[in-house]
Amino acid sequence: MSTPETPSPEQPEIIRVGMVGHAFMGAAHSHAWRTAPRFFDLPLVPELSVLAGRDAARVTAAASRLGWASTETDWRALVERDDVDLVDICTPGDTHAEIAIAALRAGKHVLCEKPLANSVAEAEEMADAATQAAARGVYAMCGYSYRRTPALALARSMVRDGRLGTIRQVRAQYLQDWLSDENAPLTWRMDKAKSGSGALGDIGAHSIDAAQFVTGQSITGVSAIMETFTKDRPVGGDFVGLGGSGAVGADVERGPVTVDDAVIFSARFDGGPIGVFEASRAALGRKNAMRLEVNGSRGSIAFDFEDMNYLNYYDAGSGADADSLGFRRINVTEAHHPYTGNWWPVGHGLGYEHGFTHQVVDLLTAIGAGTQPTPSFSDALQVQRVLAAVEHSAGKDSRWTSVD
Amino acid sequence: MSTPETPSPEQPEIIRVGMVGHAFMGAAHSHAWRTAPRFFDLPLVPELSVLAGRDAARVTAAASRLGWASTETDWRALVERDDVDLVDICTPGDTHAEIAIAALRAGKHVLCEKPLANSVAEAEEMADAATQAAARGVYAMCGYSYRRTPALALARSMVRDGRLGTIRQVRAQYLQDWLSDENAPLTWRMDKAKSGSGALGDIGAHSIDAAQFVTGQSITGVSAIMETFTKDRPVGGDFVGLGGSGAVGADVERGPVTVDDAVIFSARFDGGPIGVFEASRAALGRKNAMRLEVNGSRGSIAFDFEDMNYLNYYDAGSGADADSLGFRRINVTEAHHPYTGNWWPVGHGLGYEHGFTHQVVDLLTAIGAGTQPTPSFSDALQVQRVLAAVEHSAGKDSRWTSVD
Amino acid sequence: MSTPETPSPEQPEIIRVGMVGHAFMGAAHSHAWRTAPRFFDLPLVPELSVLAGRDAARVTAAASRLGWASTETDWRALVERDDVDLVDICTPGDTHAEIAIAALRAGKHVLCEKPLANSVAEAEEMADAATQAAARGVYAMCGYSYRRTPALALARSMVRDGRLGTIRQVRAQYLQDWLSDENAPLTWRMDKAKSGSGALGDIGAHSIDAAQFVTGQSITGVSAIMETFTKDRPVGGDFVGLGGSGAVGADVERGPVTVDDAVIFSARFDGGPIGVFEASRAALGRKNAMRLEVNGSRGSIAFDFEDMNYLNYYDAGSGADADSLGFRRINVTEAHHPYTGNWWPVGHGLGYEHGFTHQVVDLLTAIGAGTQPTPSFSDALQVQRVLAAVEHSAGKDSRWTSVD
Amino acid sequence: MSTPETPSPEQPEIIRVGMVGHAFMGAAHSHAWRTAPRFFDLPLVPELSVLAGRDAARVTAAASRLGWASTETDWRALVERDDVDLVDICTPGDTHAEIAIAALRAGKHVLCEKPLANSVAEAEEMADAATQAAARGVYAMCGYSYRRTPALALARSMVRDGRLGTIRQVRAQYLQDWLSDENAPLTWRMDKAKSGSGALGDIGAHSIDAAQFVTGQSITGVSAIMETFTKDRPVGGDFVGLGGSGAVGADVERGPVTVDDAVIFSARFDGGPIGVFEASRAALGRKNAMRLEVNGSRGSIAFDFEDMNYLNYYDAGSGADADSLGFRRINVTEAHHPYTGNWWPVGHGLGYEHGFTHQVVDLLTAIGAGTQPTPSFSDALQVQRVLAAVEHSAGKDSRWTSVD
Repeated sequence: MSTPETPSPEQPEIIRVGMVGHAFMGAAHSHAWRTAPRFFDLPLVPELSVLAGRDAARVTAAASRLGWASTETDWRALVERDDVDLVDICTPGDTHAEIAIAALRAGKHVLCEKPLANSVAEAEEMADAATQAAARGVYAMCGYSYRRTPALALARSMVRDGRLGTIRQVRAQYLQDWLSDENAPLTWRMDKAKSGSGALGDIGAHSIDAAQFVTGQSITGVSAIMETFTKDRPVGGDFVGLGGSGAVGADVERGPVTVDDAVIFSARFDGGPIGVFEASRAALGRKNAMRLEVNGSRGSIAFDFEDMNYLNYYDAGSGADADSLGFRRINVTEAHHPYTGNWWPVGHGLGYEHGFTHQVVDLLTAIGAGTQPTPSFSDALQVQRVLAAVEHSAGKDSRWTSVD
Repeated sequence: MSTPETPSPEQPEIIRVGMVGHAFMGAAHSHAWRTAPRFFDLPLVPELSVLAGRDAARVTAAASRLGWASTETDWRALVERDDVDLVDICTPGDTHAEIAIAALRAGKHVLCEKPLANSVAEAEEMADAATQAAARGVYAMCGYSYRRTPALALARSMVRDGRLGTIRQVRAQYLQDWLSDENAPLTWRMDKAKSGSGALGDIGAHSIDAAQFVTGQSITGVSAIMETFTKDRPVGGDFVGLGGSGAVGADVERGPVTVDDAVIFSARFDGGPIGVFEASRAALGRKNAMRLEVNGSRGSIAFDFEDMNYLNYYDAGSGADADSLGFRRINVTEAHHPYTGNWWPVGHGLGYEHGFTHQVVDLLTAIGAGTQPTPSFSDALQVQRVLAAVEHSAGKDSRWTSVD
Repeated sequence: MSTPETPSPEQPEIIRVGMVGHAFMGAAHSHAWRTAPRFFDLPLVPELSVLAGRDAARVTAAASRLGWASTETDWRALVERDDVDLVDICTPGDTHAEIAIAALRAGKHVLCEKPLANSVAEAEEMADAATQAAARGVYAMCGYSYRRTPALALARSMVRDGRLGTIRQVRAQYLQDWLSDENAPLTWRMDKAKSGSGALGDIGAHSIDAAQFVTGQSITGVSAIMETFTKDRPVGGDFVGLGGSGAVGADVERGPVTVDDAVIFSARFDGGPIGVFEASRAALGRKNAMRLEVNGSRGSIAFDFEDMNYLNYYDAGSGADADSLGFRRINVTEAHHPYTGNWWPVGHGLGYEHGFTHQVVDLLTAIGAGTQPTPSFSDALQVQRVLAAVEHSAGKDSRWTSVD
Repeated sequence: MSTPETPSPEQPEIIRVGMVGHAFMGAAHSHAWRTAPRFFDLPLVPELSVLAGRDAARVTAAASRLGWASTETDWRALVERDDVDLVDICTPGDTHAEIAIAALRAGKHVLCEKPLANSVAEAEEMADAATQAAARGVYAMCGYSYRRTPALALARSMVRDGRLGTIRQVRAQYLQDWLSDENAPLTWRMDKAKSGSGALGDIGAHSIDAAQFVTGQSITGVSAIMETFTKDRPVGGDFVGLGGSGAVGADVERGPVTVDDAVIFSARFDGGPIGVFEASRAALGRKNAMRLEVNGSRGSIAFDFEDMNYLNYYDAGSGADADSLGFRRINVTEAHHPYTGNWWPVGHGLGYEHGFTHQVVDLLTAIGAGTQPTPSFSDALQVQRVLAAVEHSAGKDSRWTSVD
């Protein structure tokens, strides 16, 4: 006899999500909303309620593909809908402040993509709005998803438990190469008005958040240089990619690149360590090399997102055998590692999108418990201040610049 | 104004899936059925219609967690349901033949987990049933999902295009360590009646399929040894895992292990190459090291599933610069690599479950086109014959044993 | 004031060396004899007394280049010279027995390159002669130099100390690619009469010795296949190498290859473990990949000579933190690692020739102490028996063949 | 009949070497002088004539061990000896200028360890003296030996041949960990008066030279921070090392560390690229990680001295197959790679000391040809200016500081 499924009495509550934006981040977030309840026990089960996008045809197609029940062409309408409990912001940085503040004021929880905003002023307003909302039990979180990579979560717990001893040095690189080709086309990510900055905010922001998260310390000052290798790029050109003929016709219109291709900065943290950071979208051959190394007095960790299921850990603690010290390559997929017990057997690695699923898990767990999810908008504001200090230093002969 | 989504007229057809079994493989398959249509254009969109499991409470809970619309406690009922177009078999090997043959006779397409069966005789019956069904437009496929790893699909295309020259050597290892601890508990995977064999059929079968798939050649003979290191294991013992105290009480009941912990065999392929295979579930420190290396006269490839987003490729072709030969580590996540253009930007790696999603994509694409999906049951029968030859050789002083 | 160096009273004794052969191995041994006393405290300081080679002009030039004080064109004369205390045999395998036995009978210590001989019969005679000589305080050793790689010496000590627990599996590969090109020229190494066998004796012998050395166990039986991919090769052809035009004229004379390009065998050891071995000189892209992995019940080690300064070690012992298990990459150049304290600071890696220098150190230390150096000729005879069993099995349908 | 070796008529000329200093660098240089003529054809064959050291007993013992024919206890005597044609300076940096200038004035060729001096002023005097000497056919070279690593020499030739396209980014790290332990003892390397600086001059100088050598460009400006983590260290304490008990008694006298443990700086090169440099002797777990990565518009290279026999090379040139781009791991030991044809077969790796042997080869080849060896003292002076600019910037709030 067939048994149509009946809901059990302890069925968890539903939380209805409205998402703004449906490009790369929208696809990643949609997957996370759909997938989290299938692998994790959540106090709130997400429902993909509304998707907003400016173009009616495109948003309709995206909703169908990504699994959203309905659409809006104006985010303001989405924010006001009764069937939306949480607003997920996946748009370029110049729109974050307005959407997030409106959503919080409308009593909706908010998940906002990083970087929080395109300026410290905007980020401050957002953090203020979030603080006020939190007092009413409405929570905001910023989407620094790399924190949710199991290897980095494990690194965080090792530092917190003192297994690295006193932290002395941090080195963080985020290297990509999709702008190595001078004929890669111009997009909003190379337009300062839309994106705020280039490699700095796009990927360097992840390094800053991850370095502060893993060390549990804040950056207090920086010295920086920034560089744009390719000053203009084809507008709507027929990009054939690296290794191709590179034959972009001489008659293709080119527009100005107004952001950095690469940024380098040194930093000091409030607990004593020094750090070196580099972000580049022109490091030929590096695809998504988000790397973090932390050296302490008793141990070190090293991570590379191109090898995301591993954490390298060097333990020089007193229990170590002197003849067998070495970085150990931990396959961070054991049942007792962060997040991974809910997935596959050990060694059956996770991918990029799992970070977003874990982000949903952590967000809904906090909201369900009535506690502030992290990173809060205040945490993300602090990252924004580091970004601003980097730009300031780079514009002032690399002079040391305090954060705040 | 809100716009509830309306189906477009060219909406693809629905294919209703019934799945039998809801453990590890059931979770992986469910994820694939849910996810494939969100990232790929499919001629048939899967609907998670019915889940079957013997225990009513457990199957109901699993259906809710995994997203199935209804349940059955008898697979026979599932096979007969009108709202099932395709039967997905995720049970231990001793049940494959009966379910698959019944489903095919009922006019349902079939996806059956590997190995195809626990004996050549069963596999032959299944292949016969599949051949007859195919004549009626009903298709069967076996779930050798590792073929769908982008790196191995790329390796296959390189060999097919002649980029490795004449293939000379194959070395395949599949190394895990979850049975290294002699107190790891007894399960059906260590019971020959249920599983057919141990490391051989569980993981060695993947290596055989992958080696034949990548080379495009078939194994013609083998010489083998098999070994069981731990002869009995705790029944329902309180397993504390490696690195723990290992304190399983002396009074814990132990039951016999009736399968191999490890198997080693040499092989010859019909196109000339020799091969060496090893499968072990007691290779301490190796978590899911499914490795394949193929050496040709002009090039080589090397793969390790513990590093699944990479293919290592050595090109000694005539165009190569003599001073810069070396294995290149290809991050197989570019837009033009197999499958990966539908996922994330380059370098944002995939995980274990993507192979299952790709399996659904390939299966539905073939069914939609009215063509035989691969590996067919006949292909999987050939793997079964290799497994049987390995066991035969191991039982006969490693004597060389032809496949068939 | 200048102070010409005066010998100190405790100056160690001199040992005068006569070496036969001055090709690749001769150069490596000469370097070792010259270098050992500069870095290690030795009871006997070697003097490079006589070099023998058949061609007068070539041996004279070699002596000048390599630092030998005089020459002979007949090894028999060298063996009889009063100013030779130790004979170092660096010739092809077909001459080892005659030279070694003559030298031992003449009261000279002997260092003989591996494999010990081209047949078990010869090796038995050599071992007998060595046993008789040892009774008179004259010692013989076989040159399995890979044992002296610090990483493998460390692996040996770990196994001996029980840090791997019960040994279960051994996997050994020795992969090179200099015979991948079918136009690589014919040399004595492809002539069975000179070399005894191909990849098996040339490089597989090293794997056998290393596996037995590290585990402290002996191989008791094998099952094997052997293959020659390229049946004939240019005699004196103008080899242009991989990546070149490959244009060996059709008129170049080709001679038969009478040895194996590759060999694969499974093995059992006397303490219980199973093993899988592969040696190939046609594994395109692998240059000197002498790899050894040993899995035990508590730990594992993995080594690759292409990365010779590292030992990978997995420790699952009870003291290990469950969340940080992983292969640790030990840079085996610390002051307390085997041999390395006499060289450079940690991380300043050693190279291929250091194994030969360590071989001289170990040999002279044993002779100085009046003890048998290892591997003795009897140890090397046992390796010879494994080689013979492999060839026998390969010729008998891979049937299991006992060693002895 | 025995044939005592007779010199051939075309015997190359002898060059008599006098070396000052016999610690770590002295041992490495001695090995190089002894070994170079055994593997390379040289126009001048070095004779190890005189060794100078302040303590008569210690210099006599060192000469015996290292192979020097006589000794001096005052370097001034060595410089004046008739049987010295070349002076090799292996002392701390505070003595370089005086010895080098005296030697050049005495008409001796000079090889001087790096960094050239402890100040720009001294380095300028040395460069002047070298320029004057060169006019008389007497040559000086500075010992930046890492240039002679085959992999870096290959990288240089790739950049010179345009295979990387336009160079955009340089990242250089030199990470060690021997000062991670706060109880590692105080030596001259932590005394600014002797060593000039800490990590900066000791190891950062190598990175600067290597980056400029490989790119063929000069650093024009820098912004820097420097840090000393451990402010005082035991004087003659009983150091037990990492992993040990760390039990240095509270009563052990400690002295001040007057140099940097770590330095970070960004840089610009005269051809356009930006660079990031880091040197640390407190990066726990890194033993001798001298790393260099260079990204161009068409290709990239990456090197790590902990893996010194490899160069990683990414080729995005127009001939590349789009589906097989990746860093290729070149085993730089082929016959046609720089220096390596004179050593062993491919894959039989080299070690740390080979760089010093190659240094001798290049130096004697240049002297024999009557040409200026590189890096000249002027080249080394430029490195000194970068070091000074780094220190200046670090003392001035990281302000951008021009070199010169």
